[in-house]
Amino acid sequence: MAAASASSSLSLLPRTLNHHSSTPHPNRLALSGLTPKTQALRTRHGRRARATVRAAAVETLEKADTSLVEKSVNTIRFLSIDAVEKANSGHPGLPMGCAPMGHILYDEVMRYNPSNPYWFNRDRFVLSAGHGCMLQYALLHLAGYDSVKEEDLKSFRQWGSRTPGHPENFETPGVEVTTGPLGQGIANAVGLAAAEKHLAARYNKPDNEIVDHYTYVILGDGCQMEGISNEACSLAGHWGLGKLIAFYDDNHISIDGDTEIAFTESVDTRFEGLGWHVIWVKNGNTGYDEIRAAIKEAKAVKDKPTLIKVTTTIGYGSPNKANSYSVHGSALGAKEVDATRKNLGWPFEPFHVPEDVKKHWSRHIPDGAALEAEWNAKFAEYEKKYKEEAAELKSIITGELPAGWDKALPTYTPESAADATRNLSQQCLNALAKVLPGLLGGSADLASSNMTLLKMFGDFQKGTPEERNVRFGVREHGMGAICNGIALHSGLIPYCATFFVFTDYMRAAIRISALSEAGVIYVMTHDSIGLGEDGPTHQPIEHLASFRAMPNILMLRPADGNETAGAYKIAVLNRKRPSILALSRQKLPQLPGTSIEGVEKGGYAISDNSSGNKPDVILIGTGSELEIAAKAGDELRKEGKTVRVVSLVSWELFDEQSEAYKESVLPAAVTARVSIEAGSTFGWEKIVGTKGKAIGIDRFGASAPAGKIYKEFGLTVEAVIEAAKAV
Amino acid sequence: MAAASASSSLSLLPRTLNHHSSTPHPNRLALSGLTPKTQALRTRHGRRARATVRAAAVETLEKADTSLVEKSVNTIRFLSIDAVEKANSGHPGLPMGCAPMGHILYDEVMRYNPSNPYWFNRDRFVLSAGHGCMLQYALLHLAGYDSVKEEDLKSFRQWGSRTPGHPENFETPGVEVTTGPLGQGIANAVGLAAAEKHLAARYNKPDNEIVDHYTYVILGDGCQMEGISNEACSLAGHWGLGKLIAFYDDNHISIDGDTEIAFTESVDTRFEGLGWHVIWVKNGNTGYDEIRAAIKEAKAVKDKPTLIKVTTTIGYGSPNKANSYSVHGSALGAKEVDATRKNLGWPFEPFHVPEDVKKHWSRHIPDGAALEAEWNAKFAEYEKKYKEEAAELKSIITGELPAGWDKALPTYTPESAADATRNLSQQCLNALAKVLPGLLGGSADLASSNMTLLKMFGDFQKGTPEERNVRFGVREHGMGAICNGIALHSGLIPYCATFFVFTDYMRAAIRISALSEAGVIYVMTHDSIGLGEDGPTHQPIEHLASFRAMPNILMLRPADGNETAGAYKIAVLNRKRPSILALSRQKLPQLPGTSIEGVEKGGYAISDNSSGNKPDVILIGTGSELEIAAKAGDELRKEGKTVRVVSLVSWELFDEQSEAYKESVLPAAVTARVSIEAGSTFGWEKIVGTKGKAIGIDRFGASAPAGKIYKEFGLTVEAVIEAAKAV
Repeated sequence: MAAASASSSLSLLPRTLNHHSSTPHPNRLALSGLTPKTQALRTRHGRRARATVRAAAVETLEKADTSLVEKSVNTIRFLSIDAVEKANSGHPGLPMGCAPMGHILYDEVMRYNPSNPYWFNRDRFVLSAGHGCMLQYALLHLAGYDSVKEEDLKSFRQWGSRTPGHPENFETPGVEVTTGPLGQGIANAVGLAAAEKHLAARYNKPDNEIVDHYTYVILGDGCQMEGISNEACSLAGHWGLGKLIAFYDDNHISIDGDTEIAFTESVDTRFEGLGWHVIWVKNGNTGYDEIRAAIKEAKAVKDKPTLIKVTTTIGYGSPNKANSYSVHGSALGAKEVDATRKNLGWPFEPFHVPEDVKKHWSRHIPDGAALEAEWNAKFAEYEKKYKEEAAELKSIITGELPAGWDKALPTYTPESAADATRNLSQQCLNALAKVLPGLLGGSADLASSNMTLLKMFGDFQKGTPEERNVRFGVREHGMGAICNGIALHSGLIPYCATFFVFTDYMRAAIRISALSEAGVIYVMTHDSIGLGEDGPTHQPIEHLASFRAMPNILMLRPADGNETAGAYKIAVLNRKRPSILALSRQKLPQLPGTSIEGVEKGGYAISDNSSGNKPDVILIGTGSELEIAAKAGDELRKEGKTVRVVSLVSWELFDEQSEAYKESVLPAAVTARVSIEAGSTFGWEKIVGTKGKAIGIDRFGASAPAGKIYKEFGLTVEAVIEAAKAV
Repeated sequence: MAAASASSSLSLLPRTLNHHSSTPHPNRLALSGLTPKTQALRTRHGRRARATVRAAAVETLEKADTSLVEKSVNTIRFLSIDAVEKANSGHPGLPMGCAPMGHILYDEVMRYNPSNPYWFNRDRFVLSAGHGCMLQYALLHLAGYDSVKEEDLKSFRQWGSRTPGHPENFETPGVEVTTGPLGQGIANAVGLAAAEKHLAARYNKPDNEIVDHYTYVILGDGCQMEGISNEACSLAGHWGLGKLIAFYDDNHISIDGDTEIAFTESVDTRFEGLGWHVIWVKNGNTGYDEIRAAIKEAKAVKDKPTLIKVTTTIGYGSPNKANSYSVHGSALGAKEVDATRKNLGWPFEPFHVPEDVKKHWSRHIPDGAALEAEWNAKFAEYEKKYKEEAAELKSIITGELPAGWDKALPTYTPESAADATRNLSQQCLNALAKVLPGLLGGSADLASSNMTLLKMFGDFQKGTPEERNVRFGVREHGMGAICNGIALHSGLIPYCATFFVFTDYMRAAIRISALSEAGVIYVMTHDSIGLGEDGPTHQPIEHLASFRAMPNILMLRPADGNETAGAYKIAVLNRKRPSILALSRQKLPQLPGTSIEGVEKGGYAISDNSSGNKPDVILIGTGSELEIAAKAGDELRKEGKTVRVVSLVSWELFDEQSEAYKESVLPAAVTARVSIEAGSTFGWEKIVGTKGKAIGIDRFGASAPAGKIYKEFGLTVEAVIEAAKAV
């Protein structure tokens, strides 16, 4: 069934443009769509095929022998126990408690194709309580995913394995997002569900609902305590994400013991306040029908997301450790594993999947392929009838950028009007929105300051989900994680915005963008003391350095219109590496010598009156201070010096250039170097060397008009000239 | 009344040990306690004086002519309008809407002494919606605080003024904490109220409730949307902080417009879920009695914090801009200021305070002094009866450390058992808790991993608030901000803990610690890939660099027992500069040559077989990698090289040493330098120079046993030896 026929189906893999330089990648190209046989089926049965498949699934469900279900649930439990035991590391408690809901989701409810984990219309599952990842690995294994074979379970948490200590989408096909840091997953799920709602609203037709899937999450007490989950769930309620169904594993245990010691709020009441439908399953350990009924009820509620609070026992089945924190994050130990085997009547060897369980689950490979085939047939029909929409949707699904899209980016000459890069950014966003159907985003309640509104579109809201301006409210952390979900849903290109200093609020989500290869575009304005009067709470200082130190992220600080356009070109191209654009609040001139091509190299000379690659001095600036470097260069040249002025807009991109290119910009022999940047000098020694001078700000800012602070802090043309003469 | 008599009263100023090196400081020493006259009063009237003062206040309140109240309220509005107008920058909308509740709080309800903003038993007020700071400046001005004179109002948001663009405790006496970044203030307030509840439980006696104040907050829609506020408010409910009263300025407007676009949850229901008492004041614009009644009701509820939702009109009084986002963050403009003056019947010049208003408010200086005098008298009685408790409380109030406290710190020899620095940290914490009565803290649900439990104490809980182990739950961001509140309450020394990587969740709060000079101790364990199997989501890489770049914070990475003790010595001494301790999960040997004194210098040689300050090579390590550097040094010495091994435990402290000392550790002439640290190499060029080599990790981590990752990532003795030979 799994033989590839890439040419005749949508392989629906996000286009790979940039990789982690150092982490291994699954070979996504091996995954595909349809076999010729399935295609034939599609042609013969058309839409009916779907109904048949679903009916069969439901029948199976209804007929499923409870003892077989129990056996399957125990298989999940023991695969988890055994893997943790073998690794002598991991979290058995959650999988043991959540195995019943896990079984019902993957075996009875969810629509997916194990042979193509990237099938576009699959239901999404997010294990927000990521430490319990053995639950998901066990389910992927039973369902027949290639990514989790028996040997993968046996190499849980080992070097180079596909079963790392927390779920990582870039390691394990079948895992949608990267979780573990608590609260991220539920917020990712809000993003996945929002993406579905958006695409469904844009592309579904009365006769063809081509976008149609659910998003399921399991989250625990830890996720519930994190502020990010409240932010994201407030938005989910606001947006009325009816196809988001979250299971709250209410086991009353967190690492420090009973949740009574720190978590006594009424989660139900809070979620009602957030606009969710709330259901309580009182017996999550063995109440299979209760769980099934809750899912049915949740699906019937179309205009609200649903929280199913499932009361479970952590470590269910372990006679001495269940319902205690000791089963949360450590192997049970040989003795307790034996006791648990006895207690649950499990006579099998470690890692054994009983034949009847294996047989029961084996239908998911053909069923999944049929589901995808059916959907492909539906898409073919859609394509016939709605050619334009189909092409657009296809480009969003695959993440393929339309040819020549970058021609839409504006360019500027030194004669163009001076402007703040936040405004120039808005010009880029609006230009790109016309040519990139997948571009959507917004701000954390600062749209009119971040300048992020797409003028041709309305607001993405409960009643207008087809629109592309997203109103995140003052919820930076949730915003970042929601954008990770949107980015990893398909080929959508999410951007989000706040003041640069408030990346501090969302840093954990930004790091997950970088780690999980989610090409989110972070539009961060008010990027220095140049914002003026709001003062030190609002003025970033250490933020540029802090992101330059982060792996797999692009920190870009454009100086004018051309550089802002260049930054967007880079950001859009990098679908597997997030970009942060640091943009000015204040007006900046269009500088001679800046270019999109220059930005693509990360660092380049914008002016130079030297020859033989031997200027007397190199002045280096970024963003709003490039103007100061350029002016200082002009002054020094008047005094007869040869001066090169370099824009170092992205350190990461510059680092990736050839040694020859880097030497051509910053020749090793020229040690007379002065840098200027309105931020911490930390890290600049690498650029200016031990003999150079870095002008920056190594204290907190101040509340005053911007010009005054620049002067008082010594970020001036005069200071650069003085330093240049000194070095 | 304000003449100082520092020797005869508790001046109650936190002891200053470290300052921002670069920000101006108010002269706190000018503020003091009692005059001899007041002392006499105290002696004569004793406890009765208090009742008299309060009764007088209440009488004034009851008799207050509503038209005078209205006039006072309009004074607050116009001081705000005028200051923003003069600065042509700021946020008039909130002060105009919140003036009524502001007036009632500062004129009728709160107990404070304008002549001593640091009087210990004052009611605390936090403007969590910090952008509305002109409200607070106007109130401090009317109340008679020296820090906000008319000229200060006129220099709002100007260089060097005491009225910066957001409330900053280190600039403006009378401002308790630094707010502006939304949600921080309400979380700080939870910390202030928790500190009060804790101290009251520890020190109050049936006959003398020496600790007894309320904490009031104003927060807006923005604060409500931030996850941090949900985290902190969930804890406030859990802890039953009955003396925390929060006013929610429900004005339905945020920067992007009507809150309908992003914030439609039921805040009331959510807060009920969080265990708060909720009251709704429907007319916050003119419903003075409604506001008064709500406060009365809130005070009657002793076991729950109260949220008073006050529905107001943003920019109340502005005929054309009220109830719109345009009044949120910009000056009204001359025309609209005129229109507002007409509309509210305000014939006065800018910055004018009408005589009757001035006269009405003038009583707060004598009344405040009397309140403090009364409390001082009460303290004198307390001191007589409860000598030991009084001495301890006094030390907490003043933040004075007991003589010889640091003798309690453990020391180690190379023969002491190898141990993880997280465990050694617990030894320090437990040793210090015995000698530092103000030390309290806990973990974000990782106490058993962070090793932060104080064994001699129980849990700080609703029913046992006198205990000193704080259970924060999985709420890192709230935890950090709560600790800021605790640190700025008096002389308490809060510590808090999580995995080092999760500083990302609380970075905004940590930055406020640094900016607002809150000496919080951040105990951050699992500080590298050395944590092993949990994988890259849990392994910090860029975090050391990111904090080294942050102003006014100490990033400490101790290598063993002595260095951990040294790190605690530094952390405790620095009451105005937060410290982050990065600690290992894995066992580390006790190294020869490490010392507390060495840590105090930030960097020092732990071993050296060279002479004349000219080693062949310098090997530099921090934390868990110092062992690798030391071993490599031993090997190289066997080969006849002269090698210095340097521990660079804190870059900031090392930077602060004399040039001579620095030269003695890292002589400029020795360019053969190799550093090793299990983190980003970003910034290490400063230490190793252009000719040296930094061994580190410039990618994300991996899930595998720690030893395996170290080897695969090249963090080995062999790698150091090879690099040493190459440089």
